[in-house]
Amino acid sequence: MYELHFAVPMAGAIISTLNSRLDAAMVSVLLEHSQAKILFVDYQLLEVARSALDLLRKRTSSKLPILVLIADSEHDSEFDSNIDTTSVSYEYEMLVANGESGFEIVRPKSELDPISVNYTSGTTSRPKGVVYSHRGAYLNSLATVLLFRMDQFPVYLWTVPMFHCNGWCLPWGVAAQFGTNICLRKVRPKDIFYNVTNYKVTHLGGAPTVFNMIVNSTSIDRKPINHKVITVAGGAPPPPQILAKMEELGFTVSQLYGLTETYGPGTSCVWKPEWDLLVPQERSRIKARQGIPHVCLDEIDIKDPETMESVPNDGKTIGEVMFRGNTVMSGYLRDSKATKDAFKGGWFHSGDLGVRHQDGYIEIKDRLKDIIISGGENISSVEVETVLYSHPAVLEAAVVARPDNHWGQTPCAFVKLKEGYDDIDAQEMINFCRDHMPHYMAPKTVIFQDIPKTSTGKIQKYVLREKAKELGSIS
Amino acid sequence: MYELHFAVPMAGAIISTLNSRLDAAMVSVLLEHSQAKILFVDYQLLEVARSALDLLRKRTSSKLPILVLIADSEHDSEFDSNIDTTSVSYEYEMLVANGESGFEIVRPKSELDPISVNYTSGTTSRPKGVVYSHRGAYLNSLATVLLFRMDQFPVYLWTVPMFHCNGWCLPWGVAAQFGTNICLRKVRPKDIFYNVTNYKVTHLGGAPTVFNMIVNSTSIDRKPINHKVITVAGGAPPPPQILAKMEELGFTVSQLYGLTETYGPGTSCVWKPEWDLLVPQERSRIKARQGIPHVCLDEIDIKDPETMESVPNDGKTIGEVMFRGNTVMSGYLRDSKATKDAFKGGWFHSGDLGVRHQDGYIEIKDRLKDIIISGGENISSVEVETVLYSHPAVLEAAVVARPDNHWGQTPCAFVKLKEGYDDIDAQEMINFCRDHMPHYMAPKTVIFQDIPKTSTGKIQKYVLREKAKELGSIS
Repeated sequence: MYELHFAVPMAGAIISTLNSRLDAAMVSVLLEHSQAKILFVDYQLLEVARSALDLLRKRTSSKLPILVLIADSEHDSEFDSNIDTTSVSYEYEMLVANGESGFEIVRPKSELDPISVNYTSGTTSRPKGVVYSHRGAYLNSLATVLLFRMDQFPVYLWTVPMFHCNGWCLPWGVAAQFGTNICLRKVRPKDIFYNVTNYKVTHLGGAPTVFNMIVNSTSIDRKPINHKVITVAGGAPPPPQILAKMEELGFTVSQLYGLTETYGPGTSCVWKPEWDLLVPQERSRIKARQGIPHVCLDEIDIKDPETMESVPNDGKTIGEVMFRGNTVMSGYLRDSKATKDAFKGGWFHSGDLGVRHQDGYIEIKDRLKDIIISGGENISSVEVETVLYSHPAVLEAAVVARPDNHWGQTPCAFVKLKEGYDDIDAQEMINFCRDHMPHYMAPKTVIFQDIPKTSTGKIQKYVLREKAKELGSIS
Repeated sequence: MYELHFAVPMAGAIISTLNSRLDAAMVSVLLEHSQAKILFVDYQLLEVARSALDLLRKRTSSKLPILVLIADSEHDSEFDSNIDTTSVSYEYEMLVANGESGFEIVRPKSELDPISVNYTSGTTSRPKGVVYSHRGAYLNSLATVLLFRMDQFPVYLWTVPMFHCNGWCLPWGVAAQFGTNICLRKVRPKDIFYNVTNYKVTHLGGAPTVFNMIVNSTSIDRKPINHKVITVAGGAPPPPQILAKMEELGFTVSQLYGLTETYGPGTSCVWKPEWDLLVPQERSRIKARQGIPHVCLDEIDIKDPETMESVPNDGKTIGEVMFRGNTVMSGYLRDSKATKDAFKGGWFHSGDLGVRHQDGYIEIKDRLKDIIISGGENISSVEVETVLYSHPAVLEAAVVARPDNHWGQTPCAFVKLKEGYDDIDAQEMINFCRDHMPHYMAPKTVIFQDIPKTSTGKIQKYVLREKAKELGSIS
């Protein structure tokens, strides 16, 4: 995937990296939506790819994408050389070996031409493909290098999936700084500590889940960190306790805020030296802020989404976080309505609510209300609800986030059953969901009850969120 | 000047910084050419500015620029409060204090709009104003930050004049990294060591002259350097002995190559870790290379200027260094002919000759043949010759560089006198030049002899350069 971040654009094509946890149904939908011409797949996901192509074959008469298998037999001892290669057109390394050595790079006609499509989430009805331009990706790569305080010759450990916002644009950024990349098949504490100490890793990024995994690792997996390792949290603000524990283990910690639509990193809480003098609680309070836009983003503002007026810098008045500039997406692929809505009034509407402090630093107060962030993955509650509603017994359903020590959050479903279906239990509902969507999206909790509503009939999600919060963590 | 790098563009205007060593005649020419509306002048140069305006008044009926005096009375103890303020319209600090607090930034209509004009050199006939765009300046600022390996919160000591390529774009770059700027009225070893140690300077840049000054400083002026200070040489490659001595004193040294037309920094010799294992002589040999283009420059190539064919990567075949990309000037102000010539074949022709090594690193073999670089200042030999030719006794004149331990190079003039003028001596010729151009441009050596020429009548400058070389250093 790292190599393809260069090869695909250099061939004049557009790269669309897919979440490795997606199921065949979702993959088929995204392949159809993106109209992909070639599908590169690691051998471990070959079955998912093949099933996705089968589904696609049934639905459409268009030409199916060519399947290229990444065998990785050199580097993976678990690789089975008797792998079934039905419907595989090429093996990756052989394809590369047979390439034209005199191939001339196909440069984009315009710097605004697309370089990649990142799917934020997908339902069978409306997948959202966020389009990045060459210009935006270039600038965000430089900005991320600066935000990571990445000197020349970094050693970067890939604990952020490269399929999230093109790995925060760091496949390109690490190359620009002449860096070394270390990729893991599985992100496990043992492998993190081994690689960090053995290869003198200088930087790693991750969702709070990765940090959680590191601080909760056993002493057998750990190794002492004797050099500077800058770790950057993204996806959701990590709790102060986790940050403190990471620092105890010898890591330097900072956090970034952004969305897929802002090429990943958009702001950071640039640490003013004078804050070192504050008491720890005060320091944690400030560190939780999302801060200021990076140098390649024109503007970030907190506005009333109706009037488009900026909120005062009082740290209290809540508005919607909005972005403007080069590192904001070109739009949603083949979805002009969603694009138009997202850019209403000339600013990108993040859907996140926040305040602006007196010094101009912003702070998110309510992360995209209806989105559940589980293990760094965004799960749209609407998507889960759509599946629940497809069950014959379900009358009403509402899904909210339940706080979780390990995953950050897990989806928690509140369901009102139709009369005569009282024999359905939670596990049956969970199994149904797992059969109809990627496992990580399925609710881990199902509670049967009446759904609270406003007088105008809108579901009062905040009441349900409070209830889910009271339940505490499953893990 | 630092503040004006922000204030002028934010007012929707274009900044043109003038070399503080220029004389009134040259300043008047540049003011006329740039059509400047406001002239900001430090109190130490008030007389030069006033004389320039007087000259301008005599030559043109156009409106003269408004004169704003920078008194700097707060920071300069030598300031004379009884200074003659005739023809001064405003005092800078008072102008700022009376500014509108609600002033809205005037943004450029296009990112290709000019942000600055940098004069490379000037004669009364053809000053060359290099135009920078907002886009180019922005990108080169980021590139320079990365080349300087500048982390957040740098402390930058201004030993590079801010009037050279807008200080290599670092007024903007240091701001982008939340840095502190230290400006010196005079660049002296004592002040350099005092500021470096007292304010924990992290970075400084300079022409080889500055480095020379540091390594030749007395022990009274020196202070021990106990923290990392990255020093970057530009303007001309510093001799290996100087680099070694700088490192002995505790400085970390690297070098950049570029021209005013490439916004200053264009390439650097990125140091591969494996080179640390080479013997010192080999290391110095590699360090003298100009290297590879920075991340914001599209391409650099060594081409035959006639055929526009690239030279082979053999480290031997000499060609002209050419640039292409965002951080190459928009053109020369009001000089479409020079602009067209400079961009012949779609590439910027540097006039520098070099080779490309097998690993792609370039090396300059003959720095802009006819230019003399003295104390970091480019002196055009043609300009000096023009003045010499204006002397009634001169028949022929040719000016080349004479190597100099302190200045790097000084102008050395070869002159053939007309018959009957044998009583003219070198000092008289030098004095004549000093009366007709800025002092630093005047020859320090004048040799009377026949001028060697080719069969087609072209002066053989390389013969003269050899002779000047044999003379050795004056200082």
